[in-house]
Amino acid sequence: MSKGVTPQSQNFSAWYTDVVIKAEMADYGPVKGTMVIRPYGFALWDNIKEAFDRMIKETGHVNAYFPLFIPKSFFAREAEHIEGFAKECAVVTHTRLKMDSDKGLIVDPESKLEEEVIVRPTSETVIWSMYKKWIQSYRDLPLLINQWANVVRMEMRTRLFLRTTEFLWQEGHTAHATAEEAQEETLTILELYRQLLEDYLAIPVFTGLKTEVEKFAGAESTYCIEAMMGDKRALQAGTSHNLGQNFAKAFGVTFQTQDNREDYVYATSWGISTRLVGAVIMAHGDDKGLRLPPRIAPHQVVIVPIARNEEHEKLIRDFIEPLVFGLKEKSIRIHEDWTDNSPGFKFNEWEMKGVPLRMEVGPRDIEKDQVVVVRRDTGEKIFLNKNDLISRIPNLLDEIQSGLFEQAKAFRDENTFNVSNYNEFKSIIKKGGFVRCGWDGDPETEAAVKEETKATIRCIPFDENIDDLHCIYSGEPARHEVIYAKAY
Amino acid sequence: MSKGVTPQSQNFSAWYTDVVIKAEMADYGPVKGTMVIRPYGFALWDNIKEAFDRMIKETGHVNAYFPLFIPKSFFAREAEHIEGFAKECAVVTHTRLKMDSDKGLIVDPESKLEEEVIVRPTSETVIWSMYKKWIQSYRDLPLLINQWANVVRMEMRTRLFLRTTEFLWQEGHTAHATAEEAQEETLTILELYRQLLEDYLAIPVFTGLKTEVEKFAGAESTYCIEAMMGDKRALQAGTSHNLGQNFAKAFGVTFQTQDNREDYVYATSWGISTRLVGAVIMAHGDDKGLRLPPRIAPHQVVIVPIARNEEHEKLIRDFIEPLVFGLKEKSIRIHEDWTDNSPGFKFNEWEMKGVPLRMEVGPRDIEKDQVVVVRRDTGEKIFLNKNDLISRIPNLLDEIQSGLFEQAKAFRDENTFNVSNYNEFKSIIKKGGFVRCGWDGDPETEAAVKEETKATIRCIPFDENIDDLHCIYSGEPARHEVIYAKAY
Repeated sequence: MSKGVTPQSQNFSAWYTDVVIKAEMADYGPVKGTMVIRPYGFALWDNIKEAFDRMIKETGHVNAYFPLFIPKSFFAREAEHIEGFAKECAVVTHTRLKMDSDKGLIVDPESKLEEEVIVRPTSETVIWSMYKKWIQSYRDLPLLINQWANVVRMEMRTRLFLRTTEFLWQEGHTAHATAEEAQEETLTILELYRQLLEDYLAIPVFTGLKTEVEKFAGAESTYCIEAMMGDKRALQAGTSHNLGQNFAKAFGVTFQTQDNREDYVYATSWGISTRLVGAVIMAHGDDKGLRLPPRIAPHQVVIVPIARNEEHEKLIRDFIEPLVFGLKEKSIRIHEDWTDNSPGFKFNEWEMKGVPLRMEVGPRDIEKDQVVVVRRDTGEKIFLNKNDLISRIPNLLDEIQSGLFEQAKAFRDENTFNVSNYNEFKSIIKKGGFVRCGWDGDPETEAAVKEETKATIRCIPFDENIDDLHCIYSGEPARHEVIYAKAY
Repeated sequence: MSKGVTPQSQNFSAWYTDVVIKAEMADYGPVKGTMVIRPYGFALWDNIKEAFDRMIKETGHVNAYFPLFIPKSFFAREAEHIEGFAKECAVVTHTRLKMDSDKGLIVDPESKLEEEVIVRPTSETVIWSMYKKWIQSYRDLPLLINQWANVVRMEMRTRLFLRTTEFLWQEGHTAHATAEEAQEETLTILELYRQLLEDYLAIPVFTGLKTEVEKFAGAESTYCIEAMMGDKRALQAGTSHNLGQNFAKAFGVTFQTQDNREDYVYATSWGISTRLVGAVIMAHGDDKGLRLPPRIAPHQVVIVPIARNEEHEKLIRDFIEPLVFGLKEKSIRIHEDWTDNSPGFKFNEWEMKGVPLRMEVGPRDIEKDQVVVVRRDTGEKIFLNKNDLISRIPNLLDEIQSGLFEQAKAFRDENTFNVSNYNEFKSIIKKGGFVRCGWDGDPETEAAVKEETKATIRCIPFDENIDDLHCIYSGEPARHEVIYAKAY
């Protein structure tokens, strides 16, 4: 904790890794590309998870758990799906180890599986194989199932939280009687994702549709939320897919409709992952470390006692006891740091860990019946009388929550440009930022722009307006207004 | 739901599977030995999980997440550990699939991994490889980390919830500065397990020590909780291991002690799993299906409206609205079944699903300002005036909770015998039950008894008393009093 982090301005990517490690959010696992989520990082993820779990339960969804292992043959059933995942599948082929006198511990060749199994990269196939058993009639619909699980994609270039071979996520998989209902579900979830990001993570997002090239392998259409990180790059923070009847057809899932016909079931799937932890870090962090939004922060308030001796310590403990009690009654997550590190060390540590409010209490404060409160987001120092403290802290946390959102929103808006000239486009993409502009709808245009600038179409925003708009690349009349950016 | 289940008396094992399937707790996954935990079963697991998660957090533990994949070489480091797990490891050897014009979808031979990775059967090795990075001094101790995760053991004979190739569990992995502290932690957790089983799952347990043969691969000593199922067989419901310095030595994890020496770190690990769902089913279920303890039941009360027409329906909705509101205010988990199935069908369904209280409301009940409440545990029918209902329901749920416990305890006590004669021992083991008796402490005796009767030593109970006791098999003076039973 003693050494600082690389400044953002010097190297954003090095800053990010420094903060993840020094704030004890995560660490590298022993197998290439794997990650250990340390307790502090996991508590943050757990708070995000809890918030979203509540949202989906309130909208009628239930949790379940499907197997990690999927028969290889299942992947061949949906052509686009296998195309999308074949190159990053962890394949289990054997089931025993044994000691070899020469080579030591080896995989027992006699334990080879008849059919190899795939460690799930996503669960559409295994879930639709079960839905085939569970769905017969319209009475069985809708089926609104979610699971919180780990998935594996053997990525070549990994980065803590943002892209790891294994990650934690939720994957919702719903089944509906009509196309309209499936579309409504897809958009309902997208709206929940928007709320989660904006109201809890304090990250403003653009919502919209992915292009054909960028959509999920096996979907009819993919909707997404896209956020701007501190280096002005885009991060896809959540996706919601309308799968149409693709998986129902691949797995033969039909149902008896209310008017006695037989039809294939309509599907959606949607996910957010531990990648969101990376989003929080990159959207709000500064050169001192994390700045966590209070609604998801593991500790909302940390108390740093300023004690030189045991007498001080006792004085402070007596003074804060009713305050801590009162704050806990208000469901404030409060942590007392009684370790024997110096106050200065503790200030740095909790700044690094992004705790929204630091409360300093020493004998001199107690004489004045006050504590010193320091906001992590602004650095502002506030003297609070002990009688006001319990009522003021929740307000301060709310202010920090909205302050972080406003700051992130201002930053994003300052760095989002409406552009009609390709040279200007290239210069903005180069220095970083989002560009809103026209697109002729041609995948080849999209590919050419990506080739020349590394920018991709993040989404076709819901509020697109193509009046008088021309394609930034071809000059043709625009088919869509889109948002381009370089992305994680 | 229309067909009944096999009676317990006829075939307990068939009864169990029938109930699991018909109550929609779980289903078979497509890969052999895997299980799908359906929403109703998952909600039960989630309630168990939540109860235990609260307990461990209150005792200072934190959650984290370690990778699913472990390098093969890690397993070779602790000799007993690899011995215990080598024969049931899922091994990942390749990372890509590809289309072959002849054979269809195949594993790409060019994607072979340099070092195979093992899907975790348990996480001691990967966690201690990380602890080596995180622990330097006594100041870093104790480390009290838990994870909720999936693990894989390629079992040959599987059974839903009880033994599946993949299961969900929590695994705690703690690190301590002294042997005493590690032992204290081991027993603290065992006590939490006992509380979870007895106070939440309403299942009485014996607590004690495992024999050398039965202990965890790599532990110094294993403590366990053992429960009796409805067929008088034992189920190991949770284990807590004192690992001594075994894993610290295997991974070279030393620390600087307070008096400036260097020592290996002391460890514990402990786990409970989705097997507990099976325990709840088998400890309390009857021929009508599940009987769920209220504290963990997904729905504590189900309302079955008895309506012949829309007018009735409206009447009932208006009548129950304030009641439901009042019960929810008291945190009662209540479910209204407005599906268009018949009341009789619904009665059967919710009995099968083990909901502790069924509330029937029809126009005639409303005339009398009452509802009919039926207890799932006893079948007792109770008429409750609407003015008493909100205060009475929580009491009834408490009565059911303790009633289920008392019933299970009486059953276990009736079927636990103090025996000193081996013929008697064999006849009890044959017809089912626990036997408390003497053991000479010799593993060969233990093996011989197992060979002859299939009974194993479930534990050396904490309250053992060897005064005047002789070994049931050898007749030698007893070294321990033990509990023998056939087990799942």
